[in-house]
Amino acid sequence: MRTQSLSDGAKRTILPSGLRIVTESIPTTRSAALGVWVGVGSRDETPGMSGASHFLEHLLFKGTHKRTALQISSEIEAVGGETNAFTTKEYTCYYARVLDADLPLAVDVLCDAVADSIMEPADVETERGVILEEIAMHEDEPGDEVHDVFTEAIFGNHPLGRLISGTEESITPMTRNQIHSFYRRRYKAPHIVVAAAGNLDHATVVRLVRKALAGTALDSEPADPAPPRSGSKRVPTQKPHVVVRNRDTEQGHLVLGGVGIGRRDERRFAMGVLNNVLGGGMSSRLFQEIREKRGLAYSVYSYASQYADAGLFGVYAGSAPGKSDEVLDLVRVELDRVATHGISAEEIARGKGMVKGSYVLGLEDTGSRMSRLAKSELLYGELMGVDDLLARVDAVTTDEVNEAAADLLTQPMSLAVVGPFDENAFGAHR
Amino acid sequence: MRTQSLSDGAKRTILPSGLRIVTESIPTTRSAALGVWVGVGSRDETPGMSGASHFLEHLLFKGTHKRTALQISSEIEAVGGETNAFTTKEYTCYYARVLDADLPLAVDVLCDAVADSIMEPADVETERGVILEEIAMHEDEPGDEVHDVFTEAIFGNHPLGRLISGTEESITPMTRNQIHSFYRRRYKAPHIVVAAAGNLDHATVVRLVRKALAGTALDSEPADPAPPRSGSKRVPTQKPHVVVRNRDTEQGHLVLGGVGIGRRDERRFAMGVLNNVLGGGMSSRLFQEIREKRGLAYSVYSYASQYADAGLFGVYAGSAPGKSDEVLDLVRVELDRVATHGISAEEIARGKGMVKGSYVLGLEDTGSRMSRLAKSELLYGELMGVDDLLARVDAVTTDEVNEAAADLLTQPMSLAVVGPFDENAFGAHR
Repeated sequence: MRTQSLSDGAKRTILPSGLRIVTESIPTTRSAALGVWVGVGSRDETPGMSGASHFLEHLLFKGTHKRTALQISSEIEAVGGETNAFTTKEYTCYYARVLDADLPLAVDVLCDAVADSIMEPADVETERGVILEEIAMHEDEPGDEVHDVFTEAIFGNHPLGRLISGTEESITPMTRNQIHSFYRRRYKAPHIVVAAAGNLDHATVVRLVRKALAGTALDSEPADPAPPRSGSKRVPTQKPHVVVRNRDTEQGHLVLGGVGIGRRDERRFAMGVLNNVLGGGMSSRLFQEIREKRGLAYSVYSYASQYADAGLFGVYAGSAPGKSDEVLDLVRVELDRVATHGISAEEIARGKGMVKGSYVLGLEDTGSRMSRLAKSELLYGELMGVDDLLARVDAVTTDEVNEAAADLLTQPMSLAVVGPFDENAFGAHR
Repeated sequence: MRTQSLSDGAKRTILPSGLRIVTESIPTTRSAALGVWVGVGSRDETPGMSGASHFLEHLLFKGTHKRTALQISSEIEAVGGETNAFTTKEYTCYYARVLDADLPLAVDVLCDAVADSIMEPADVETERGVILEEIAMHEDEPGDEVHDVFTEAIFGNHPLGRLISGTEESITPMTRNQIHSFYRRRYKAPHIVVAAAGNLDHATVVRLVRKALAGTALDSEPADPAPPRSGSKRVPTQKPHVVVRNRDTEQGHLVLGGVGIGRRDERRFAMGVLNNVLGGGMSSRLFQEIREKRGLAYSVYSYASQYADAGLFGVYAGSAPGKSDEVLDLVRVELDRVATHGISAEEIARGKGMVKGSYVLGLEDTGSRMSRLAKSELLYGELMGVDDLLARVDAVTTDEVNEAAADLLTQPMSLAVVGPFDENAFGAHR
């Protein structure tokens, strides 16, 4: 067992099994946030198992040898805590937020749920229904759905292009044994990071985690922690194209964009500044042009998603269907303008302010600090100090931002649309 | 100018104009949250002016004699802060969250925006388009829309029954002069509370606010602060009935419920516990019966809305349309069971834990603390200390919860449904 000090007073202990524990003590708070992070997500699934990581996430709340589903939730909720989980394309997180005195309880419950799921066949059937409802609910939110359509337009059949939830077609036939085998194969100590932030003591958390995992499948043979997911492969992307999903909606929801950058790309700080200037706030180019000056949309913004070895960026706008063409033209004009003429020094200074401010303001709650620790460990293999990160943002130059803009915004782009349109309504943009 | 100390170290100053300033110093944080709260909302509107408060909220970001719309947003965003606003049925809030050193800037910008709007006719036309898009976007979210349908089912034509946003019919013809006159009539110093929480000094904030408002319409003749909105009138409610809004959605979205309690009703603490036990978390009755045991819904919960002199409570569930009837029956059975047989001591203890825990955990960010100060001042006229509030929750008895359940859950209920159903699909429940 090795314990190291990290930046900002954080500490990391590596258990013999390869499971990592990272914590940050914040004595000024009365609460604690705890997360069990597993380095597996939807991109680790075969097409037939699409949605398995997310299905599994649901099932781990259904009961262990020690606790029923009701006990798992009620033990945390009885002390005023909250617990939940989420699945992404690259990892799965189970978390709880509790008063500091209840951290031992939270460690015991979450570790038990993650390490020792029974996965009763009847519970699998019940939860299948819940997941099918979750998928249906999502389809009733066209402003969300259009992002999934866009992601598939970029990555196609590559696992990054598939839905995290899976589809009705993949979820319906998935068997309990398939999911259980996925669980046993993927939930291994070297791929797990337990993170905590709040009014806590590192050594105590380590002791609690060891105790909670003793004798479980995660109390395994000595191993080294897994390195971060490789960022060296090249993810294939689709030729730029248009996808229209016809739905009887009040607005036309569209995303225009293309291939972005990976998580460890050195340009990510410049990209963060660029994204904020382009569509990150009320003072951004797109907000000003499309909403403030013309009143064509309520919601318009740009975003960038980064994965180990790939990324995308897109611009979302929701407008009256009759105005979708006009909005799309305005988005294209603005992207071209930024790519061609660059961004002013004043805008770049503002973009840096936004990146740094949202980062610093986001660090005030224990949940965000816990997430920062875990993601640093799981996705980067190191914790960048807050001051170092702010310095990296400050060091971004105008040239770097404009080069990123010229690289990314001049590519032929894909377009995803959800709304009352024919398949060929946006044919001219093909 | 009178300054008083409140509970938990908060302070209040009443300016000669009747405008109140409440602050709480939290020296352990590096940030500050600021809000300008105005005691006017959609229930203060005539039918023809439905949506005026919200329209006005948008317009106040469009420019003053000192600042353009871009300057208002960019001054805050350049220093990494965020600013926004929201309108409710009873009040309107403009807020910013910034690093502590930038609080003077935030005070200057927000006070300027609220006190000195120019409201250019051309900007009114542009923003009308934005609001019509906001209304359309909301109609594309059936899980939200069903709550509006339900609220109207309870309150009918009473102003509490109308949409905060107004409708296309009310927004389209509303003139700049109507909105401007609403602004001048309603945005008066005695109805305004400026609240701040974070690393700040009360006297400094008072000085900054006075300076920012000097010479504006809010630097007005001496007056007393307005008392909280009266809770003595009786708000008329509708006879229980069913409203179905036919939409081509994947899920059937329904809300079943009835008349609740007002904000200053002594039963509100018992109601908070009841609501948590019934449908407030994963361990709640409704979650367990409908999701955990049967897998019929992903999202199912209960909620209570409280206004000065009225309230409502409802249960939401989204399920496959073919299962909506079954879900509805299960909700009814559970409400009857709770009303008839009451709730166990263990559940009540858990409900209290949830109410207290979410309250305490919610107090960790400056934005929530700022909101607590402002709402206490504007809606209750006093600030209840955190310990006092926790003691009130602890003092709730099993009898009080069961009496609240018997009172509220046995009434004939209204039902709102959004989904692929005929108008009479739920006729049997009329």
